Amino acid sequence: MTDTQTTNAATMRAMGERAQQKIDALAAISADPDRLTRLYLTPEHKRAAKLVGSWMDEAGLSVRMDAAGTMRGVLPPGRPGRSGNKTLLIGSHIDTVIDGGRYDGNLGVVVGLLAVEALKARGETLPFAVEILAFGDEEGVRYPVTLTSSAVAAGVFDPATLDQKDRSGTTLRDALVAFGGDPAALAGEAFQPSSVLGYLEVHIEQGPVLERINAPLGVVTAIASQSRHRIRIRGEAGHAGTVPMAMRRDALVAASELIVGIEAIARKDRKNALVATVGEIEALPGASNVIPAEVRLSLDVRAASDEARREAVAAILSLARKTEAVRQVALTFETVLEKPVAACGRRMMAAIQEGASRVMGKPAQTLLSGAGHDGLSMVRLCEYGMIFVRCRGGISHNPAEFVTIDDMGAAVEGLVETILALARQEDDQ
Amino acid sequence: MTDTQTTNAATMRAMGERAQQKIDALAAISADPDRLTRLYLTPEHKRAAKLVGSWMDEAGLSVRMDAAGTMRGVLPPGRPGRSGNKTLLIGSHIDTVIDGGRYDGNLGVVVGLLAVEALKARGETLPFAVEILAFGDEEGVRYPVTLTSSAVAAGVFDPATLDQKDRSGTTLRDALVAFGGDPAALAGEAFQPSSVLGYLEVHIEQGPVLERINAPLGVVTAIASQSRHRIRIRGEAGHAGTVPMAMRRDALVAASELIVGIEAIARKDRKNALVATVGEIEALPGASNVIPAEVRLSLDVRAASDEARREAVAAILSLARKTEAVRQVALTFETVLEKPVAACGRRMMAAIQEGASRVMGKPAQTLLSGAGHDGLSMVRLCEYGMIFVRCRGGISHNPAEFVTIDDMGAAVEGLVETILALARQEDDQ
Repeated sequence: MTDTQTTNAATMRAMGERAQQKIDALAAISADPDRLTRLYLTPEHKRAAKLVGSWMDEAGLSVRMDAAGTMRGVLPPGRPGRSGNKTLLIGSHIDTVIDGGRYDGNLGVVVGLLAVEALKARGETLPFAVEILAFGDEEGVRYPVTLTSSAVAAGVFDPATLDQKDRSGTTLRDALVAFGGDPAALAGEAFQPSSVLGYLEVHIEQGPVLERINAPLGVVTAIASQSRHRIRIRGEAGHAGTVPMAMRRDALVAASELIVGIEAIARKDRKNALVATVGEIEALPGASNVIPAEVRLSLDVRAASDEARREAVAAILSLARKTEAVRQVALTFETVLEKPVAACGRRMMAAIQEGASRVMGKPAQTLLSGAGHDGLSMVRLCEYGMIFVRCRGGISHNPAEFVTIDDMGAAVEGLVETILALARQEDDQ
Repeated sequence: MTDTQTTNAATMRAMGERAQQKIDALAAISADPDRLTRLYLTPEHKRAAKLVGSWMDEAGLSVRMDAAGTMRGVLPPGRPGRSGNKTLLIGSHIDTVIDGGRYDGNLGVVVGLLAVEALKARGETLPFAVEILAFGDEEGVRYPVTLTSSAVAAGVFDPATLDQKDRSGTTLRDALVAFGGDPAALAGEAFQPSSVLGYLEVHIEQGPVLERINAPLGVVTAIASQSRHRIRIRGEAGHAGTVPMAMRRDALVAASELIVGIEAIARKDRKNALVATVGEIEALPGASNVIPAEVRLSLDVRAASDEARREAVAAILSLARKTEAVRQVALTFETVLEKPVAACGRRMMAAIQEGASRVMGKPAQTLLSGAGHDGLSMVRLCEYGMIFVRCRGGISHNPAEFVTIDDMGAAVEGLVETILALARQEDDQ
């Protein structure tokens, strides 16, 4: 068995360098020469999927692209398993946001592939199959939906989604056909829950915690409970020079009061990792000499538990109603998305903790994923687990996204050790 | 002499109805069939100027369009004046904002014209000439500059302005030539200060004060001291789900805190009619799941005195610096426009007070004009005075702009009485 003693720093570094090469090769595939943009079912997605497929092939996996455009590579079981040679799924996504970074998603696919290569190179045999999945739609940029490819794999895809259109009016159905997928075959691509051991994903943290505690890897406990809301505040327009302050019903001042209050509410609940963000604001009519008549805000609330998030939303709504009354504005509060917390499986977390701590020589920090991931689909199929990798400044969705070569090496080795820990669990059952 | 006793309500009503007809005829001239949009030096402006010119002609005035596109109609003096038959200028503007109201500007031209007609009909002779001016550029919508036409009349036009371009790239110079104006002749269109008695303008209040005190007319004391600023706040972008509240430098929360503080500062100084408005806000990158990295705000501050305005701006800047330090953002504060208070002339105010109180049967309220007007140019030529007319809800720059027929009749009669008061002043000199 491989362990930290036998895997020296040079080996890890070499794996990190291989990861970097593959990351860079993928980053060269973009809709744009000057920035990385790779949306679902575009020619760029196709080229990236083919490149990943060629790597899977080189690694000796059985490769195929499924009906949703997901590139899949299977390593068969090396020996009998007590629970009957199930499949361990390992994946992430190869789509990006517009002007995105090179690590988000792509790193998980590359690390999965390199871990399988390393296991083969070291002669490890596993009592389960491993299937690497390169999903194509996690970012949800092209279509109003997201997680299309992992939803298909998890058997939770809603066929009505095929009628969604992108900005140019192309339906998801037509884009899928043009890509070489098959809308009619999506249902058949779902894994059977009984045949799956679990789903593992390596992903950059997209937050500042691991950097702050100086650890390359972390164990995700759950994807946060999340809701998104639209707030609209209607006051009264007026000339900026002629309406006395006491006679105004300024929608932007009301909105500002609310934004400051939202921050105060979110700051109160550190225990539940509560965060609340107003990322979009629009003031109408939007002229320097007109008192704003209407303001539209987005609100994003996330927490470690559904209850904590709901309580925060209730507090925000109560504050909003107070603002409405005091400032004599009309306020509407709409919930446009609500996702329950998606807890990682105990077995997966234990294996990741074992694998990551072996690599780091210290216990791995557990942390909540504030961002959504393909795990939100996969949790409906099987136990899932996530390994977070430190990224510089917590920056993601940005060309400045960065992971060191050493940390990528640690990620490959951490995943190898996690897979081996699962293999031992399987043997011990 | 005409006075309130001899001008009964029916006569005023009839004058109001004539004003309404002319207002409606002008409102039919628009770039757009569904809304009133009439920008400087456009075909609509030309048609409106010609219509005004035809009315001036019908009223027996000597009519010409000047080199800046201002339609001018002159009524010569009816009798010798002690100070030598100067000219009393009466004007306003016939351009509108995009989707504007029908009274802003246009009412002043129409009322000026009807007042001259009434004086002639009643056989009044004046010891000065009266010249009606229909300016074309008060709103400043088409070009980055404003008050072009009144600046030409006042002799304060900056020829460099001719190089300004509209959105389609047409320079003011070219637009003026296409309109039938003459860029080379602008300097020659300036009135000589020694030949001018003063400038009078009737305008809707664009504020709620006269409606609140139930008076059709008011006497303007000054156009407020005004400054405009651009505030830029740079924080740090981050994923809305992954950056803990305590590690954020959210530019929008910082901006919101500042906006609430600006309102509090402005509310403190009622005595100086201080108002401060943030009408524009932009948050970047502007996505619901990204912590705002940068926010840009407009700030408009006005007050009855330059000192009160400067003190308010200093207080706002000091608050902004505090916000910058506490929230660890980078803040820039730029002054893009600064206009000193433009006080109305004592002689003009006295005449308007006399005229308006005769019509209303009670003293007229004095009030500050928070909005800018052509008086800002004309004050550099001569004494100026303004009569404000009540408008519903204080609404302007909006199709809902509304003045009653009775109030328009009162405005015509108020202007007639003001002119007669000036004639008596002239006789008494």
